[in-house]
Amino acid sequence: MLRTHELGSLGSGHIGQTVTLTGWVARRRDHGGVAFLDLRDASGVAQVVVREEEVFSTLRNEYVLQITGTVQKRPEGNENPALATGEIEVMADQVVVLNTADPLPFQIDEHVEVGEEARLKHRYLDLRRPAPQKNLRLRSEASRVARELLHADGYVEIETPTLTRSTPEGARDFLVPARLAPGSWYALPQSPQLFKQLLQVGGFEKYYQIARCYRDEDFRADRQPEFTQLDIEASFVEEDDIIALGEQLITRLWKLIDVEIPTPIRRMTYADAMAKYGSDKPDLRFGLELTELTEFFKDTGFGVFKAPYVGAVVMPGGASQPRRTLDAWQEFAKQRGAKGLAYVLIDDDGSLRGPVAKNLNDAEREGLAAAVGANPGDCIFFAAGEKTPSRALLGAARVEIGHRTGLIKDGDWAFVWVVDAPMFEPASAAVAAGDVAVGAGAWTAVHHAFTSPKPEFQDTFDTDPESALAYAYDIVCNGNELGGGSIRIHRRDVQERVFAVMGLSAEEAQEKFGFLLEGFKYGAPPHGGIALGWDRVVSLLAGTDSIRDVIAFPKSGGGYDPLTAAPAPITPQQRKEAGVDARPKSAEPSKPAEGKTAPAEA
Amino acid sequence: MLRTHELGSLGSGHIGQTVTLTGWVARRRDHGGVAFLDLRDASGVAQVVVREEEVFSTLRNEYVLQITGTVQKRPEGNENPALATGEIEVMADQVVVLNTADPLPFQIDEHVEVGEEARLKHRYLDLRRPAPQKNLRLRSEASRVARELLHADGYVEIETPTLTRSTPEGARDFLVPARLAPGSWYALPQSPQLFKQLLQVGGFEKYYQIARCYRDEDFRADRQPEFTQLDIEASFVEEDDIIALGEQLITRLWKLIDVEIPTPIRRMTYADAMAKYGSDKPDLRFGLELTELTEFFKDTGFGVFKAPYVGAVVMPGGASQPRRTLDAWQEFAKQRGAKGLAYVLIDDDGSLRGPVAKNLNDAEREGLAAAVGANPGDCIFFAAGEKTPSRALLGAARVEIGHRTGLIKDGDWAFVWVVDAPMFEPASAAVAAGDVAVGAGAWTAVHHAFTSPKPEFQDTFDTDPESALAYAYDIVCNGNELGGGSIRIHRRDVQERVFAVMGLSAEEAQEKFGFLLEGFKYGAPPHGGIALGWDRVVSLLAGTDSIRDVIAFPKSGGGYDPLTAAPAPITPQQRKEAGVDARPKSAEPSKPAEGKTAPAEA
Repeated sequence: MLRTHELGSLGSGHIGQTVTLTGWVARRRDHGGVAFLDLRDASGVAQVVVREEEVFSTLRNEYVLQITGTVQKRPEGNENPALATGEIEVMADQVVVLNTADPLPFQIDEHVEVGEEARLKHRYLDLRRPAPQKNLRLRSEASRVARELLHADGYVEIETPTLTRSTPEGARDFLVPARLAPGSWYALPQSPQLFKQLLQVGGFEKYYQIARCYRDEDFRADRQPEFTQLDIEASFVEEDDIIALGEQLITRLWKLIDVEIPTPIRRMTYADAMAKYGSDKPDLRFGLELTELTEFFKDTGFGVFKAPYVGAVVMPGGASQPRRTLDAWQEFAKQRGAKGLAYVLIDDDGSLRGPVAKNLNDAEREGLAAAVGANPGDCIFFAAGEKTPSRALLGAARVEIGHRTGLIKDGDWAFVWVVDAPMFEPASAAVAAGDVAVGAGAWTAVHHAFTSPKPEFQDTFDTDPESALAYAYDIVCNGNELGGGSIRIHRRDVQERVFAVMGLSAEEAQEKFGFLLEGFKYGAPPHGGIALGWDRVVSLLAGTDSIRDVIAFPKSGGGYDPLTAAPAPITPQQRKEAGVDARPKSAEPSKPAEGKTAPAEA
Repeated sequence: MLRTHELGSLGSGHIGQTVTLTGWVARRRDHGGVAFLDLRDASGVAQVVVREEEVFSTLRNEYVLQITGTVQKRPEGNENPALATGEIEVMADQVVVLNTADPLPFQIDEHVEVGEEARLKHRYLDLRRPAPQKNLRLRSEASRVARELLHADGYVEIETPTLTRSTPEGARDFLVPARLAPGSWYALPQSPQLFKQLLQVGGFEKYYQIARCYRDEDFRADRQPEFTQLDIEASFVEEDDIIALGEQLITRLWKLIDVEIPTPIRRMTYADAMAKYGSDKPDLRFGLELTELTEFFKDTGFGVFKAPYVGAVVMPGGASQPRRTLDAWQEFAKQRGAKGLAYVLIDDDGSLRGPVAKNLNDAEREGLAAAVGANPGDCIFFAAGEKTPSRALLGAARVEIGHRTGLIKDGDWAFVWVVDAPMFEPASAAVAAGDVAVGAGAWTAVHHAFTSPKPEFQDTFDTDPESALAYAYDIVCNGNELGGGSIRIHRRDVQERVFAVMGLSAEEAQEKFGFLLEGFKYGAPPHGGIALGWDRVVSLLAGTDSIRDVIAFPKSGGGYDPLTAAPAPITPQQRKEAGVDARPKSAEPSKPAEGKTAPAEA
């Protein structure tokens, strides 16, 4: 080693010792004839005293130094209690410049605000700052404790392939041309889903992997083209087993930040979450449940409220919002695709105010506050129309209200399992949300095509897809989906019926998922699992809003990497070698394969 | 859980208890009115007794069952000491068929030989066999103990990107079209090399990752297009530090199979390895060093031995090989590109025999045995010609001799660090070996372009590339390269000079590695690391010849996956969406970029 001690390890116990240290110049102060350097390494900072002017005059910030010197007690009154090494300083006998540094594009200082593009372009400098150091070290710890827990529980870590066949799961695949099979392509996996299921068919019973996954999406808020999930699957389990394991993981992880999560974590049906919180990811750090008023307004004369669904959410103290703020709420609603956000203000004397109020009849005016649980001084927001978008709007307003009114507090944690989601949703809804429907049918899977129906819907899910509930569970924290899972289908006939609901013909199902259906023929055990979005889990632990803060080298918008300038054009030679423009040979004779219906030539 | 106990956990302590078990029917024996099932789960096998004929007559091998019954002692004399649960059996009260199984394409039996293509096509069945179960569980353990050791030593696990820019390292990149930047492509990384170096620039000091890597090679013997390496990098280290860490890892890993590796592991220079063993991966489980005879034959009249290099290796007892075997050695040499393998047989009386013998003069005949250390009854094999291919041929013959003569024994382990490799080799040699030279120069890097010269060659490596030694170390076990590493270049000027030797112009270096060179401007610390080929390490631990045996879902020849039939053609819509045929927009204006010299249109 080029050093004898790490800087952060130095203390009064080392006084009098000769030490060799390495690190970066974090700060230098010239006190006329003697200079004080703050030398920084990964372990901390220590003060180094350099007496030779011809030495320290050449040193600049972020130079990499090797210092040999003697640890001494700082002079009385010069101690720095803010610093772990604040009692000592190192009198330098020898200063070796291991590397120099040009003037920096931005300072390595947690208090300096730097634009994200610049930070990502020079990510290696950004990473020297305390927050990214802390975040990535926390991520390493999170992976460590999760693995320890899973190993202790008998789980086997198994790596699954990433150059594979497309496993459609609701997003587009990234594709990789296969040079040795010109015109053919691998796909990067959206998740290890099918492989982890096949490992259950293979008798591994308890599998996990911290797996890289790939989804070619339109980079909606805070998505990355590659992401990581803690991926778990087990045989002979029931929903409660996976939920219990999930709770062990969550409690162990949150202990890393000294937070005790009470268990069992509450469970809420998907139906309740949508009705009361307008979201399948309810933020339960605060109340303010939605109130359905469809019945209340069933005889209303107000045209807007003559709707299949009317609902409301109360903003405590919201009656005092100025007109400007109330107008901004209309904008808030429009950005979410609604026409606006109707509201009623309740004055301190209980009288109702605002444009909606005068459209209500006496009974409605009198009963409204009680019906929604509002008090004088509150504001009631309404949404009316189709149930799903109306609830979604109220749900979004509810969260915004939570933030604005201070009901959501830093350091609050609210976990909930959302269970009993529908098996299917109209394919049009999935497409509208930016997903890629797997089949051509009217219905697509809410979770994914491999999720089992709850046992009571086993016989009816294909004749009445709308009513069927999935054997699925999502874990939600503070309004963020941390992950989700399900008990899977393990019977070939059930899987084929699900594909049929989704509009996959038997031939298409065979073409896309033939290897799974084949595997189910030979004694597939009942199995289920869960996947936790590791970037999101760690970002919550780190207390940061963006998953980019817990990824060493994240992409920025549009999947662009400001550091390496990827993606980039390729050379004609690379293109030729990759076989991108070759006509594929027909696939295996035994497989009808995509080649027949889909020649690769554009 | 669908069970109360794992099968392998059952023993006489459970006698009298009611248990619920799950597993696969491994075997069934019908004893007229009562049937015995061997039920198998991941933990083991137990015997289940079923008395109802109408139940057991429907059961087939690999059916998945849930059995509820009572544990009882086996009748006297029916115990099976070969089975951990051999003292007990379970009298079934209830048998639930959780899933059926069609007749299998092959039996789940370790004693049945099945072709690899069939095994990989139905890998989920193959994985139920004892050897794959054991191998993948061992792999999980190997990863666990390596991580534990590294965490205990302060290493931080950091995930690096896999959708990135090409980092040329001697192979072709796999490419991924970027839909959101049509005509631009990501590359899958050949290793995390540049990112782990940038993490050192970023101040992480101790990094590791069990990383997926990708090399688009021609699938020479036992290569996979995607593979895994244990990737390690640290700052302020010297060669001895990384070697010491490597030895800790190796000793800890081999303890998993109850083998004690003595440390320190011996070191050998690359020059010695080539001279004595004809390989940079010497198998030191046995001796039989090569002897150089160039000097010995300097005045020979035998035309074949008038060569820049003459060398020999002795096969103990080889004089008794029949003519047919000696002819086969000629074939062995021809397959390796040589003309043949000259030999001399020493009879028991010390006289020399064979076609070469009569071409030697008396002095040569008399001195030969002593010069090569051969005894009566031995065979001496010769190679003559250019030094490098001649040594390689003798090295290959040496290993073959080791196997044939029983000098290589199962259970022997011989580790060696090969150090002081040359920095550069002629680019033509790299291309001949199937690699892709990074630059256009006469020289290319033996390790990679980021390897530092040893300090004594710092000033001269570019004026005398042939002599320069790299600050590199490879760990070799039983003739297999387990991994390698080096102290890296951390100074921009040195890196630029290395690129220049490799024939990269300043502009090309900037284009390909600009972000690394930029990073080196701002205080890059001295650093170094190592990478262990995880598939190879685990295959050695598992005692299997092929890395495919320790990969859950390996590719077969040509990168084809018999399970999923990947790679496969894509649809015209996928091709259109991926932007494969789009003309790329010019890259960032600030970067001259590949776009200028390399439009993506073929």
